[in-house]
Amino acid sequence: MAQARLTIDLGAICANWRALLALGRAETGAVVKADAYGLGAEQVATALAREGATRFFVALAEEGAALRRALGPGPDIFVMSGHMDGDTTLVRDAGLTPMINSIDQMLRHVEALPGHGFGIQLDSGMNRLGMEPAEWSALRDIALAQRPALVMSHLACADTPDHAMNARQLAVFREMTDGIEAPRSLAATGGILLGPGYHFDITRPGIGLYGGLPFIDARPVVSLSLPVIQVRDVAPGESVGYDNSWIAQAPTRVATVSGGYADGILRAIGPKGWLWAGETRCKVLGRVSMDLIGVDVTAVRTDPEALELLGRHQSVDTVAGWAGTIGYEILTALGPRYARRYLAP
Amino acid sequence: MAQARLTIDLGAICANWRALLALGRAETGAVVKADAYGLGAEQVATALAREGATRFFVALAEEGAALRRALGPGPDIFVMSGHMDGDTTLVRDAGLTPMINSIDQMLRHVEALPGHGFGIQLDSGMNRLGMEPAEWSALRDIALAQRPALVMSHLACADTPDHAMNARQLAVFREMTDGIEAPRSLAATGGILLGPGYHFDITRPGIGLYGGLPFIDARPVVSLSLPVIQVRDVAPGESVGYDNSWIAQAPTRVATVSGGYADGILRAIGPKGWLWAGETRCKVLGRVSMDLIGVDVTAVRTDPEALELLGRHQSVDTVAGWAGTIGYEILTALGPRYARRYLAP
Repeated sequence: MAQARLTIDLGAICANWRALLALGRAETGAVVKADAYGLGAEQVATALAREGATRFFVALAEEGAALRRALGPGPDIFVMSGHMDGDTTLVRDAGLTPMINSIDQMLRHVEALPGHGFGIQLDSGMNRLGMEPAEWSALRDIALAQRPALVMSHLACADTPDHAMNARQLAVFREMTDGIEAPRSLAATGGILLGPGYHFDITRPGIGLYGGLPFIDARPVVSLSLPVIQVRDVAPGESVGYDNSWIAQAPTRVATVSGGYADGILRAIGPKGWLWAGETRCKVLGRVSMDLIGVDVTAVRTDPEALELLGRHQSVDTVAGWAGTIGYEILTALGPRYARRYLAP
Repeated sequence: MAQARLTIDLGAICANWRALLALGRAETGAVVKADAYGLGAEQVATALAREGATRFFVALAEEGAALRRALGPGPDIFVMSGHMDGDTTLVRDAGLTPMINSIDQMLRHVEALPGHGFGIQLDSGMNRLGMEPAEWSALRDIALAQRPALVMSHLACADTPDHAMNARQLAVFREMTDGIEAPRSLAATGGILLGPGYHFDITRPGIGLYGGLPFIDARPVVSLSLPVIQVRDVAPGESVGYDNSWIAQAPTRVATVSGGYADGILRAIGPKGWLWAGETRCKVLGRVSMDLIGVDVTAVRTDPEALELLGRHQSVDTVAGWAGTIGYEILTALGPRYARRYLAP
C-alpha cells in the first residue's frame, strides 16, 4: 500500500505525563484539544485516564462532547472557549465545565444552566482569553460564591524561561487570586518547567505529553514512515518535481515517496528536509507536492521500501525548524490519510 | 458555539467543472485525491458524477475504495500511486484502475489480477511518477496489447504558461504515445489552460474545480467564518498573544476568534493576515495560535459575532500569499474541526 504509516506511542505519552507530574506537587491534568494535538483525543485521553489523569482540557464544547463519549462519566472536561451562544445543550448533556471568559459568558451560563459547574479564565496579560482585572473585580464575589471548579490563566512566554513576562503574569495572577478557595491553575508545559512557583493546584501539560519542546526530556511519541512508490536514476541536468525546482548536478538515484502537504508535511519544508533509510540520511529534492516527495537515495545500498520522516533520527521540532515553525504545528498538521497505529502503554 | 464554519459551494465546483469542460473537446475527469483537496471527496465526487463526470482520480487505493463506496459502481476510479504491494484486495474489490508507474508494478498487477483493468503513467520529465522512456520502450507492446484504460503523464510547470518545460514535456509525451489506441491524458488544470494542444482525450482538473489559481476565472468555492469568543480593549504598551509578538501603539479593540493552526490556518500567516467584519478589513495581531487568533476590530462599529477569513473578500490564493505558499495547501490544510456546510448544486 501507498498509505503512509503514523505510529503513536501511548506509552511514551503516559511516561511524559508521569514525568511532568513528578516535577511538582500539583495535580496534573492533560490538554487534549485539537484531537490531542492531532494524535487522537479518544486514544490519548483514555490512556491518560487509566494512568490517573482526571482533568482534561479542550478548546470547543464539540470536542468536549466527543471526549465525554470516549471517557464516560467521571473525569472533568474543561472547555477553554467557555460558554458560547449555542453551547448550552452540549455543556449540559455532556457534563462539560466551561471556562468562563467574560461577564457575557457568565450571564449566559447562569441564566441557561443555573447550578451547573463552571471555571473562570482570567487574563493576566496575554490579552487572548479570560477576564481582565477590572471585569474580575466586578464579578469576583458573585462568581466565587458559586464555587468555581477552577480559576486559571495562561502564560504568553513560558517557552522562553527568562522572559520578564513570566514573572509579570505570575504576579498579576497572584494578585487576582491569592486567598481564594477555588483550585488555581496557571502552568501549561512551559509553565511547569518554570518551577513549582508556577504550578498552583493543577497543571495543564499539552505539548510536553506529545514529545515536543520546551520539554527537552520528553520521550518521543510519533514516528512517520512514507512508502517508496518507485525509484529512478536521474542524469545530470534533469529536474525533479514541480517548477523544475531541483536540477541534478550528478547522477542521482531518486525515490518518490507517498506523503505530501495534504498529509501535513508542510510545503515550507521544501528542500531543507531530510528523511532516513535506516541509518542513512536522504535529502528532499525539490518541492513537497500534495501527495508525493522526491528524495535522494543515491547513498542507500538497496532501494528502500519506505523512508522515515519522524522518529528515532529526528523529532517534530527538527522538522518544524526546516519549515520555520514550531513542533506543535507539525503535530496538529498530521493529516487524516495515514494508517495510524497505536502502541499500547 | 465556538466551532468555526466552513461553507463549501458544490454548485461552484460543478460550474468550474463545466467551465473547464467547455475549454476544449476532451472528456473532463475530476481529481478528488486528498479528500477532494480537503473539501470532502464523497460530497464533491457525488455532485460531479451527477453533473456528468465519469472519471475520478485519487492518490491512494485506500482513497479509491472509500470513493467507490460513495459513488457506487460505474465511474472509473484511477489510482495515481499505481498498484502497490498490499493493494490487490482493494483494487479488485472496489474495481479500481491503478495507474501503473513501473515495470515492477506491471508485474505485480498482471500476476495478482490478470485481466483486471489498468492505466499507464509515463514520466515525460518531472521525474516523480511514471515509466521512463527506456522502461516504456521495453514494456510498450506488451502493455498496449492488454488495452490500458488510459495512458497519462503529468506536467511539472503548467502553472507557468511560458515555461519551456511545457512544450518539452508535450513533445516527449507525443513521442512516447503518438499512434497508440488507448485514451491519452496529459493536462491537469494548468495544462487545460495551456490550450487544446495539451488536452488529448481526457483532462484531469483538480485545483481549478476548487476555485484556486491558475484558473483565474474559477468561481470561489469556500468561505470560512471564525466566531468571536470575546472582545477587549487593549491599552498602548500592552501585548497580544504568544511571545508578546504584537504590542499596542494606540488604544485597540481586540477580538479573539476561534480558529488557529490546528484548523489549518497556517502559522506562517502570522501578522500578515487579515479577516473581514462585513466590509471592514481587520488585521491579525501577533501570532496565530493553535485554536485562537487575535484580530484588530477597532474600526468595526459594533463588536462582530464572527470574522471571515475566506470568502467574498479574499481567496485561498490571497491567504496563501501571506504564508508564502500556494492555494492548494490552504485547501488541503483545512482541518477536521470545522462545522461543514455544503451548498447544493
